[in-house]
Amino acid sequence: MTAASRYTYLGPEGTFTEAALRTLPEAATRELVPMISVPAALDAVRTGEAAGALVPIENSVEGGVTATVDELASGEPLMIYREVHLPIAFALLVRPGTKLEAIKTVTGHPVAQPQVRGWLARFLPEAQWESAASNADGARLVQEGRFDAAFAGEFAAPTYGLEPLVTDIHDAQNATTRFVLVGRPARPAAPTGADKTSVVLWLRADHPGALLEVLQEYATCGVNLMRIESRPTGQGIGRYCFSMDCEGHISDRRVGDALMGLKRLCADVRYLGSYPRADHVEPTVRAGTADEDFLTAADWLTRCLDGRPGGVSGR
Amino acid sequence: MTAASRYTYLGPEGTFTEAALRTLPEAATRELVPMISVPAALDAVRTGEAAGALVPIENSVEGGVTATVDELASGEPLMIYREVHLPIAFALLVRPGTKLEAIKTVTGHPVAQPQVRGWLARFLPEAQWESAASNADGARLVQEGRFDAAFAGEFAAPTYGLEPLVTDIHDAQNATTRFVLVGRPARPAAPTGADKTSVVLWLRADHPGALLEVLQEYATCGVNLMRIESRPTGQGIGRYCFSMDCEGHISDRRVGDALMGLKRLCADVRYLGSYPRADHVEPTVRAGTADEDFLTAADWLTRCLDGRPGGVSGR
Amino acid sequence: MTAASRYTYLGPEGTFTEAALRTLPEAATRELVPMISVPAALDAVRTGEAAGALVPIENSVEGGVTATVDELASGEPLMIYREVHLPIAFALLVRPGTKLEAIKTVTGHPVAQPQVRGWLARFLPEAQWESAASNADGARLVQEGRFDAAFAGEFAAPTYGLEPLVTDIHDAQNATTRFVLVGRPARPAAPTGADKTSVVLWLRADHPGALLEVLQEYATCGVNLMRIESRPTGQGIGRYCFSMDCEGHISDRRVGDALMGLKRLCADVRYLGSYPRADHVEPTVRAGTADEDFLTAADWLTRCLDGRPGGVSGR
Amino acid sequence: MTAASRYTYLGPEGTFTEAALRTLPEAATRELVPMISVPAALDAVRTGEAAGALVPIENSVEGGVTATVDELASGEPLMIYREVHLPIAFALLVRPGTKLEAIKTVTGHPVAQPQVRGWLARFLPEAQWESAASNADGARLVQEGRFDAAFAGEFAAPTYGLEPLVTDIHDAQNATTRFVLVGRPARPAAPTGADKTSVVLWLRADHPGALLEVLQEYATCGVNLMRIESRPTGQGIGRYCFSMDCEGHISDRRVGDALMGLKRLCADVRYLGSYPRADHVEPTVRAGTADEDFLTAADWLTRCLDGRPGGVSGR
Repeated sequence: MTAASRYTYLGPEGTFTEAALRTLPEAATRELVPMISVPAALDAVRTGEAAGALVPIENSVEGGVTATVDELASGEPLMIYREVHLPIAFALLVRPGTKLEAIKTVTGHPVAQPQVRGWLARFLPEAQWESAASNADGARLVQEGRFDAAFAGEFAAPTYGLEPLVTDIHDAQNATTRFVLVGRPARPAAPTGADKTSVVLWLRADHPGALLEVLQEYATCGVNLMRIESRPTGQGIGRYCFSMDCEGHISDRRVGDALMGLKRLCADVRYLGSYPRADHVEPTVRAGTADEDFLTAADWLTRCLDGRPGGVSGR
Repeated sequence: MTAASRYTYLGPEGTFTEAALRTLPEAATRELVPMISVPAALDAVRTGEAAGALVPIENSVEGGVTATVDELASGEPLMIYREVHLPIAFALLVRPGTKLEAIKTVTGHPVAQPQVRGWLARFLPEAQWESAASNADGARLVQEGRFDAAFAGEFAAPTYGLEPLVTDIHDAQNATTRFVLVGRPARPAAPTGADKTSVVLWLRADHPGALLEVLQEYATCGVNLMRIESRPTGQGIGRYCFSMDCEGHISDRRVGDALMGLKRLCADVRYLGSYPRADHVEPTVRAGTADEDFLTAADWLTRCLDGRPGGVSGR
Repeated sequence: MTAASRYTYLGPEGTFTEAALRTLPEAATRELVPMISVPAALDAVRTGEAAGALVPIENSVEGGVTATVDELASGEPLMIYREVHLPIAFALLVRPGTKLEAIKTVTGHPVAQPQVRGWLARFLPEAQWESAASNADGARLVQEGRFDAAFAGEFAAPTYGLEPLVTDIHDAQNATTRFVLVGRPARPAAPTGADKTSVVLWLRADHPGALLEVLQEYATCGVNLMRIESRPTGQGIGRYCFSMDCEGHISDRRVGDALMGLKRLCADVRYLGSYPRADHVEPTVRAGTADEDFLTAADWLTRCLDGRPGGVSGR
Repeated sequence: MTAASRYTYLGPEGTFTEAALRTLPEAATRELVPMISVPAALDAVRTGEAAGALVPIENSVEGGVTATVDELASGEPLMIYREVHLPIAFALLVRPGTKLEAIKTVTGHPVAQPQVRGWLARFLPEAQWESAASNADGARLVQEGRFDAAFAGEFAAPTYGLEPLVTDIHDAQNATTRFVLVGRPARPAAPTGADKTSVVLWLRADHPGALLEVLQEYATCGVNLMRIESRPTGQGIGRYCFSMDCEGHISDRRVGDALMGLKRLCADVRYLGSYPRADHVEPTVRAGTADEDFLTAADWLTRCLDGRPGGVSGR
């Protein structure tokens, strides 16, 4: 297969990321290549070795969240074209035949630990935990005999010749990881009516209150903010950039208007794409912020500027 | 002379309004027609009998302020093309030969009274005040012998055969009246760099906080508000429209952007014009709100929409 | 009667103000004294000659609105203890026997004219209008034979020996004037659950955006603004103070909190009183702004400061 | 030693956290106990086995940042009493005698990698990277001969019998990690004039714009925000809590007022403490937000409520 049909993902094989990638219809016709890290998966897209990369971006149980946010904020520009939500539940994978009472050591990715801590305390209070580089890597270490059991996705069992002893383990209800499909910059996906737009903002320095102004810019345009995450810029404690998702598509006038406001207000803005929401929720459009309201206002302004009838209306 | 060269003003002859009108260079070549009231002066413009009308709009000592604001907010649309600031000081006009100690009755427009109250208490504590329909009218009543003295502009003395007994009377320092030259809707005056833009807004009903949103719209665009005046809409206590002046010209991007925001936000907006500031003060343009910032942002948005280079930038 | 039982009002007898005053139950046991002007009515309270004064403050057909607002904002402090809403409708008062077709001249207060303009254009298009100092004064001038008819309240007819030829004349639907009962500063009226609080604010100079901060202060505390009126401070064009009414009573925590914020934010604040709303509408209290929310928050802060349990809570 | 004199820290020995802890004067008289993870270090405080714990909270090169934020936001309440800023520079640690050209494999904590990536590309482009559980752990693995070199703090060398081959490696200028000293809830440290206050907020559900209101609450009180970090609440994608630091001490009136506002506004607030800023920067106090302004406003409100002189002031 060629680079155009290749998708990378945060590997190794058997991760939740692979499971998320396989929920995309086009994955069936792509070469899916596991990469050792989020930067590696994304760099393959930057260099043209792959057409896209699927990486976790939020609330992950595989780690990689801040790595993804930071990678999208820096280096060669990339864009998001799709998002996938995957419910997260762990299985306890063991070598075939292993019994629960025989488990003395367990492993898994460090971020999996909080999700299974309660289960461990109840069912394996004596077992010793040691971290692995990924959940799938933990499965591999069990296969090699280094540990007795690994927390991973149930789908990882066959890859490593293991069997799921217990399934559906998750301390938090509704544990979900959000993944994004990333590609090189191009025209955003067409609006679907239930879209999301992502940006990274760098505020002007020495301007307390700049973040408040950013949120007001969204509010003034009637655009709801869905996620805000501050990330260090690497220029010292207290210097942040902001990764933000809002409702709507860049081709929605209210979103475009908000983005232009942010562009003026901020030291810099990186547009990360507009793409369909995984939850298909359509936004509530506040009075005065529909596309036609923006068009009417623009037409009215032109009439005012030209001294044409309709410019000076009123009751 | 024809209607095209006729200017009406709030009369009668000898008012401060006439004095203000005569400060305009083109007044020398126009037919200046005093009218009995602000509505009458403006209606002559609406019907085409005059090309313009000069009326007081703010802090007047002749009254007429709210009349002007209300007239501009309702009826056939009109627009402001010029403003004039006139320092206000009264003269005590008497029939030639009258001495101060002989003055038993004084007159003047009711709104002049607060300006001369302190002076009266000090120099004519026994004199009886009676209101006149205008300061000039008061002068006429002195001429007719109905009163002993009238407060009016010193310039009104010759018109009514009176002489100024005392001049430069004004309780408040810096008493100034602002007048506007009003015409039928047309293309606004060209921007001068020190301009003002006037609108009337009707907020959406049953939306507490709408005024806050209006002010935020101006603030978000970096446009300073200069005047805000609430006026009853005539639809009951508690229902207002807002007459507002802001810095800048409608052709300034930040002003245009704010106006479009107001148009979307409000039930209705009446554009009353952009015109040179009488005080020639140029606005401070906040970072990110210059014309070029708006153009850069619009260009950036287009690039994002088209997937062209430069759309996805960042640091 | 003594000063303690004396109420002044904006006269002369037969004005709408007198009619409004007579709607107050205690008016029956007070000596009601008409005064020539709003300042005169209020000064009688300041000097102790009267216990209270009823004056129009909003949307008046008698004028006096800005006079009232300005008088309350300056001079010796006064406070508002009550408000009265009076529907405004005019009667055309004539000398007994006068027929409509015989009316050649009409009079009334200048601010009455906009209310009757439409009626005049329809029924008395030829009649000549001349302004009177008050509606009641116009009635007196008809009594004296100077004019054929006067617009005034129907209740003014007997005072001046006139009869109402036409009644219920008003161009605007729901024309209402709001009056306030003013006294010397004292403890505000007890809260009723449907109250209003009035203040006058002087913004800090050279601080564009200060008004926005004022409105945000109200909004942050969950207090709805009901009226905002800018008034010149007499220190030159562009210098204003703001007369504002908001929902609620100063003893409501959210109102008190907002007022303290305004006090800190502004160059000066004059508290004009908390009093029952004439419309008896109870405010909607937003989540987190009830008295108990303020008390809970204050208790929580104390616990945090003291390191006591409950200070550090969370989910 | 007893629990009262025991401090835990994110271990193992030789981490930057240990180095940060040793910058505190009292560390000299405490028993310092390395713990395997941030939760373990904090749990020792919760159970009373230790009096305090030093853990990284921001921009760490040891990981642990989100673990710290999440641990402080949940479970048994804890409070921050001190912060430490430690400049981060790596040394390349090797077994004594190892030469640069002999290095084929390097290790270190995953979050160290971005800090040394540029250095590696330039000086060891062929070396293979493998992640370790901590930088100190990487040093141990070099000691054991599993890898040729480890990135860690120079101070870690003696602990593991290694020597620093290259020092002061860091891609980003000013790389710093912020650590906090955490204890059980008690009265906050006394204000120093250059303090910081930390909270965790849970917004009310289904209230878009709630974050904007939170920022406005700070702004209204004149309190500058220093850090904002959104963290998933574990209740599904799109549900966050916010970890925030602001300038000032809870005993500063403006901070206390802001905190009470947040308490009212939010579903819940967890106070995490007020403590001296590591950078000793004193805040700029905006006009109207000094302690005396709050006291003056409170006194004024009381006078208004009591009808005492001074309540109704004005100009």
